[in-house]
Amino acid sequence: MTEPRWLDAREAHLWQAYRDTQRELTRVLEGRLISNSGLSGADYALLHPLSSAEGGVLRTRDLGRSVGWERSRLSHQVSRMEKRGLVCREECAADARGSMVRLTELGRKAIEAAAPDHVAAVRTYFFDHLSIDEQKQLTVLLDRVLSGIPTPAFPAAECDDPAVDCT
Amino acid sequence: MTEPRWLDAREAHLWQAYRDTQRELTRVLEGRLISNSGLSGADYALLHPLSSAEGGVLRTRDLGRSVGWERSRLSHQVSRMEKRGLVCREECAADARGSMVRLTELGRKAIEAAAPDHVAAVRTYFFDHLSIDEQKQLTVLLDRVLSGIPTPAFPAAECDDPAVDCT
Repeated sequence: MTEPRWLDAREAHLWQAYRDTQRELTRVLEGRLISNSGLSGADYALLHPLSSAEGGVLRTRDLGRSVGWERSRLSHQVSRMEKRGLVCREECAADARGSMVRLTELGRKAIEAAAPDHVAAVRTYFFDHLSIDEQKQLTVLLDRVLSGIPTPAFPAAECDDPAVDCT
Repeated sequence: MTEPRWLDAREAHLWQAYRDTQRELTRVLEGRLISNSGLSGADYALLHPLSSAEGGVLRTRDLGRSVGWERSRLSHQVSRMEKRGLVCREECAADARGSMVRLTELGRKAIEAAAPDHVAAVRTYFFDHLSIDEQKQLTVLLDRVLSGIPTPAFPAAECDDPAVDCT
């Protein structure tokens, strides 16, 4: 086996900065979200695509795709939010084996109340530190890194029932 | 209240790219780590600073600082790793109220076995997509964003006992 190519000091600095930024941005944004609105980051992550969808409803598998979560994580989070009255599950009219997640009126009010402060926080802690040109550079770099990551062999949220091919 | 400044399409693209990159890099790196070495991302995160520390031992509060975790998360993860024989807790010789975490021989073997493939994966999925100049640009941008995030008012991992000032 060839000798591992360990990160040098410059590379280790970048990798640490990447991981620290990720952790600290999540901490500050989710902390502010929960204290201002009572919503967790996971609540917000699901409410956002539902509130943008036509009629406030999405197929479970499309909701899973939009947040990139494994099916079990999505299912547990939807159950928690269902108990709190933020969303409800429905059968899919077009596909008896499919399921849908619908935003309730309470869920819509919750994200509408939370969103203005959340977007202000995203600006304060992220966008306001970057010029327009830097934002464009960063988008190019992140898109390139992202495009190099293979998608899962069996996309976890692809299908509501693993026995059914619904791609 | 003034009208919220929602993200425009360009900003929303960057924010989505940032969040998708974070989630997908974590998924691919942690997936490869666990399948190749049996270590979780959280295991690796604690084993790494311990393996670099003199004598393989750190004060619990310094270990917490190095990973930026809340005390309860750190404590639970150390307990899990202690049960698997990767680390052990010790009292602090210099401070009867402080505690230390020590890498065991098994823990050192585990990270030494895992590290070569992990660093290769970090190169494959992150560094190899960026030129040296782009890596330097990205470091500047991330350092700037990071420096704008306030540290917690009461750093969670600052002190083993909240009643004791051990800064």
